[in-house]
Amino acid sequence: MTDLLVQDCHVLVVDETDGIQLLENHDIHIVGQRIERVAPHDNQAQATALATEVINASGLLAIPGLINTHAHAPMVIFRGLAEDVSIERWFNEYMWPLESNLTEDDVYWGMLLALAEMIESGVTTVADHYFYMDRAAQAVREAGSRAALGWNVFGDQGRETLARTAAFVERWQGAANGRITTWIAPHAPYTCDDEFLRAAADHARALGAGIHIHAAEVMAQTEASLAARGKTPIQVLADTGVLDVPTIIAHGCGILPQDIPLLQQAARVGVAHAPKTYMKLGMGLTPINALRQAGIPVGLATDGAVSNNTLDILESLRLMAMLQKHEARDPEVMPITQALQIAFRDSAAVLGLEQSLGKLAPGFLADVVLLDLSGAHHQPLHSLSASLLYNARAADVHTVIVDGRLLLHERRLLTLDKERIASEVRRSMARLAQRVPEKRIQVYSP
Amino acid sequence: MTDLLVQDCHVLVVDETDGIQLLENHDIHIVGQRIERVAPHDNQAQATALATEVINASGLLAIPGLINTHAHAPMVIFRGLAEDVSIERWFNEYMWPLESNLTEDDVYWGMLLALAEMIESGVTTVADHYFYMDRAAQAVREAGSRAALGWNVFGDQGRETLARTAAFVERWQGAANGRITTWIAPHAPYTCDDEFLRAAADHARALGAGIHIHAAEVMAQTEASLAARGKTPIQVLADTGVLDVPTIIAHGCGILPQDIPLLQQAARVGVAHAPKTYMKLGMGLTPINALRQAGIPVGLATDGAVSNNTLDILESLRLMAMLQKHEARDPEVMPITQALQIAFRDSAAVLGLEQSLGKLAPGFLADVVLLDLSGAHHQPLHSLSASLLYNARAADVHTVIVDGRLLLHERRLLTLDKERIASEVRRSMARLAQRVPEKRIQVYSP
Repeated sequence: MTDLLVQDCHVLVVDETDGIQLLENHDIHIVGQRIERVAPHDNQAQATALATEVINASGLLAIPGLINTHAHAPMVIFRGLAEDVSIERWFNEYMWPLESNLTEDDVYWGMLLALAEMIESGVTTVADHYFYMDRAAQAVREAGSRAALGWNVFGDQGRETLARTAAFVERWQGAANGRITTWIAPHAPYTCDDEFLRAAADHARALGAGIHIHAAEVMAQTEASLAARGKTPIQVLADTGVLDVPTIIAHGCGILPQDIPLLQQAARVGVAHAPKTYMKLGMGLTPINALRQAGIPVGLATDGAVSNNTLDILESLRLMAMLQKHEARDPEVMPITQALQIAFRDSAAVLGLEQSLGKLAPGFLADVVLLDLSGAHHQPLHSLSASLLYNARAADVHTVIVDGRLLLHERRLLTLDKERIASEVRRSMARLAQRVPEKRIQVYSP
Repeated sequence: MTDLLVQDCHVLVVDETDGIQLLENHDIHIVGQRIERVAPHDNQAQATALATEVINASGLLAIPGLINTHAHAPMVIFRGLAEDVSIERWFNEYMWPLESNLTEDDVYWGMLLALAEMIESGVTTVADHYFYMDRAAQAVREAGSRAALGWNVFGDQGRETLARTAAFVERWQGAANGRITTWIAPHAPYTCDDEFLRAAADHARALGAGIHIHAAEVMAQTEASLAARGKTPIQVLADTGVLDVPTIIAHGCGILPQDIPLLQQAARVGVAHAPKTYMKLGMGLTPINALRQAGIPVGLATDGAVSNNTLDILESLRLMAMLQKHEARDPEVMPITQALQIAFRDSAAVLGLEQSLGKLAPGFLADVVLLDLSGAHHQPLHSLSASLLYNARAADVHTVIVDGRLLLHERRLLTLDKERIASEVRRSMARLAQRVPEKRIQVYSP
């Protein structure tokens, strides 16, 4: 009856209200794409006999698959090409000129490389926002990951580009056994005028889809918006009807107190938080505490690898917790339980998937990561939850299951040929690294 | 003639003034404990024939062994036992009660476990400050690491304890082929009165040793010192003669501008910076920029695992650079070259070992780490230095050489039995975790 039996692991259960609980020596029974049962380890071997596939997870820690709520995953192909530069130069002299080199094939191979990195670090779901997304979707289908995909569009490309992103939404919504969901993805209020945003919201409403957008990324954007439009970027989203559909807002480091009630009145909104990018680019921080107190979920994210360098959600999680303590100069801020609730429950809620992701319980989708905490850097294991937050490394990820299927086992990728993918990307390195500032896809001038 | 030949690696050369340079496809010739030659790869096989031992390092990146300028390594035995608590509670309700459980054997096994973790993460030298240091030195001798060891003493234990720490200095100075150096280690100005500090400086001067001490750890300590003694902790060190001998100051997050000239006038002083601990405990930050501009070296550190959780200098390095950008809200601050100069050159200078450590060049001690940057999280490798700073993980450490001897090869520890060590520590977990606040070794009341 059980398709996949994960045997004798310790199961971390994170609940929004009850905090965290550790179920020691339990079995996880997976039927199809869902968790059927989590029960004390049955060493009578009866369960084993009835399972199609059995994984011995003795001594391993099972956590829900990690969720990356905002990325531009294929950008791994430009990794390391824009260091130590201001945000203005980062966009205008680096990122947007580099992206003028981009081909559909680059997106495909870049997405595969990024998915390999994410699977190896326990990231099972990514909300991705980029170009040529049919090719990204194809990569997700092959890798076996879960993804919420949106085709980025800029307002100055005209309203017909919205028809393209909407057609992508229709083409791929629910594809790959439901692993792929799709989102309308206008870039940001500072690159899309009100009319364009209104049309994007109309498309989303018509398709029953949500909108994934950058907004109030830094305080300077909020100030520029107030100067130019007389309202904050969040107010722009509210007034153009964007917040009437489900919305993922990337970054929000420039969210003001006056924006919070607008977000509370939204249909369903979540904010993606990518602390490594914010540190590296000196962007400030998302007001996590104010958002959470207002009931607005904040999820973990990596943004793209040109700002974040890695796509490692365990790293984002640790940085988030430590930065909250640092900013408050108070070590009691953001305790372990809260950080883990954000990683698992709130990150799922940002994607509107809290009923099916982010918890190891019956009825939830079987996205499971097994961590090996036997390394010297975890010993002795006085506190498993502290070790998960402050010691765990991507390299501790031992096994990854998505939708009931094994994608990584004993640290070996099962669906992707990493050598082949890396070598395909490397072949294009010289072309990808060309940078002619005048040849850019967009200008940053919020 | 060559004892150990590291063949065909890429060699990172970091210079104080010239910045960083990459020597592609070079051989490192090691004779005895030192680097004899770094030369373009000789594929004539002649060099190979003349070498006693050869390592194929093709495609690997060679960096100088990482230096941890301030730790309490054996504290790994208490890892995870004091989370999300204020500094006062951290000391008085957790750390110092826990340390009343400490035995000599705990220090030995704890030090071995910590050295295993550090070797696996490329840390070849540690400046350690703890108790029962004969046992820590014994562990260092066995592991093959390099260490600067000091036996922690508190002023309220009386001046005779200084004789003990001084005797330790004499017993172990230059031991293990010079891998062990020793330091006088009074705890801090807030736990040692002026007379005690003066006596410590006298001992150091008499022995030709330096002093490793905590000072101005947080701004609250500086304020308390000004209130109680009418001077800053750094002024106390200057007035008691501590700064007349070589000094390692741990943390210095409470260093004021008026302290900088005092440090400039010191015999030789360096400041150890442990950013993960500062974030977790909300301590603020060492004024790295002001210190460096005044010519005072700042080195990377992990502090103990009860605050820092890990002993991972690559993590400290990354956090240091990102925090400097974050605090300044300026991504141009602390560029890659400067961060790597701090990691390699300045960290060696904090220990007074800049003539022999922190550079892969002839005459330097052969402490070499080989990193495997072939993982998906590094691909494609547009910028090797960016990848070292922002992507490299402890698990990328492939080979570690200290004093010309292999300690880790192909990720396997050669000198330590990790399973045995972890199991010895685990046996004591219940006893170690006992916590009776009234039974503490010291009271935090700066």
